Amino acid sequence: MSSHHIVRDDQEPALIIANGASCSEELLGQLLEWSPLVIVLDSAINRVLELGIKVDVLLGDFDRGFDPEHYLEKQYPLEIVHTPNQDKTDLEKAFDYLVAKGHKAVNVTWATGKRADHTITNITSIVKFRNKLKIVLLDDHSKIFLLPPTYEKWYPKNTTLSLIPIGKVNGIHSKNLFYPLNDDELTIGYRTGSSNHVAEDGIVSIEHKEGDLLLMECWD
Amino acid sequence: MSSHHIVRDDQEPALIIANGASCSEELLGQLLEWSPLVIVLDSAINRVLELGIKVDVLLGDFDRGFDPEHYLEKQYPLEIVHTPNQDKTDLEKAFDYLVAKGHKAVNVTWATGKRADHTITNITSIVKFRNKLKIVLLDDHSKIFLLPPTYEKWYPKNTTLSLIPIGKVNGIHSKNLFYPLNDDELTIGYRTGSSNHVAEDGIVSIEHKEGDLLLMECWD
Repeated sequence: MSSHHIVRDDQEPALIIANGASCSEELLGQLLEWSPLVIVLDSAINRVLELGIKVDVLLGDFDRGFDPEHYLEKQYPLEIVHTPNQDKTDLEKAFDYLVAKGHKAVNVTWATGKRADHTITNITSIVKFRNKLKIVLLDDHSKIFLLPPTYEKWYPKNTTLSLIPIGKVNGIHSKNLFYPLNDDELTIGYRTGSSNHVAEDGIVSIEHKEGDLLLMECWD
Repeated sequence: MSSHHIVRDDQEPALIIANGASCSEELLGQLLEWSPLVIVLDSAINRVLELGIKVDVLLGDFDRGFDPEHYLEKQYPLEIVHTPNQDKTDLEKAFDYLVAKGHKAVNVTWATGKRADHTITNITSIVKFRNKLKIVLLDDHSKIFLLPPTYEKWYPKNTTLSLIPIGKVNGIHSKNLFYPLNDDELTIGYRTGSSNHVAEDGIVSIEHKEGDLLLMECWD
């Protein structure tokens, strides 16, 4: 039975496969394990179909002579969502689609690598969806998400944790980080909390007062 | 005669090879063509030496048991610069080194890809060096640099140009871009000028009043 016969309650995170560099098959396999709703951004579709992945939604502006109908023949059912609005990226439009359908959470992969403009825009655009959609970006070296004002999680000692402010973030306090923050301010381009790490096995706590702060769990 | 016998006047841009994903041999060959001063960040050194590149400076915090003396045997002369300060990234320390030595310009490659925290920190940290060092980041899909308040350059029609604000940038005006900006404001995470393109063969002009604005010339 292929994945699209499974009845979903849409409580599991959906999966968006974006237009950056492909990730490892292992990571993709993990992300597909619970048969999420799979949304593919238009320019990635050929690479995705080559991997034999069942796609639920093909979304994009379909510019540069892209013919979405061609893929209807290859996959059925396939929802085709044409989003010509040039004020938003295709990834933002995929987030909008999920919000409109009532989804609460999404994993995103292939959102980094290749073009640097896409990478930085994809990573930073998740801050706009605070309170609308729980977004996690994943690639072979990174797990990226927006921090709530108070965040607590158990981590093993030495886990690399990078605090990346999208703009200016102030009133930052941390517990159990090797380089502690104490009412600190971080500003993108000037002072970030990149390459911090966990001091001891245990709960890490990060609080901030104002601004958009990303946490990146990264590994070499 | 190998490159290190060439007498340099240090007017040519230096080259920093950072710790991200390797670029194509073609790009690296172009960057090495005029025998620049080559600085390698510590964790990239093995990959660089495998390519048979003459390295002038090996720089880093040399953490995680890294032994720089080992490379002195492999290359001579080689300047070893130990930069243990944990408040800056190794790339920022390489920029500081060049500024202290009186260099005016540098190309940087391998600064993107792999860990997302390194990628975003490397790209955005160039804004701190405005007026100190002319920095250009290059990978196989992108050329990235900080815009002066007024920028003019000839581009062919349809060249992709992305305007990425590092923080908030206001008073932006453009000429000859397909999506024109007219006293516009861009804010990272909320509104960027990603994936604009050149309207017609000719001079593109971009002005901004306040803030740090990166230009990314990108291609698929």
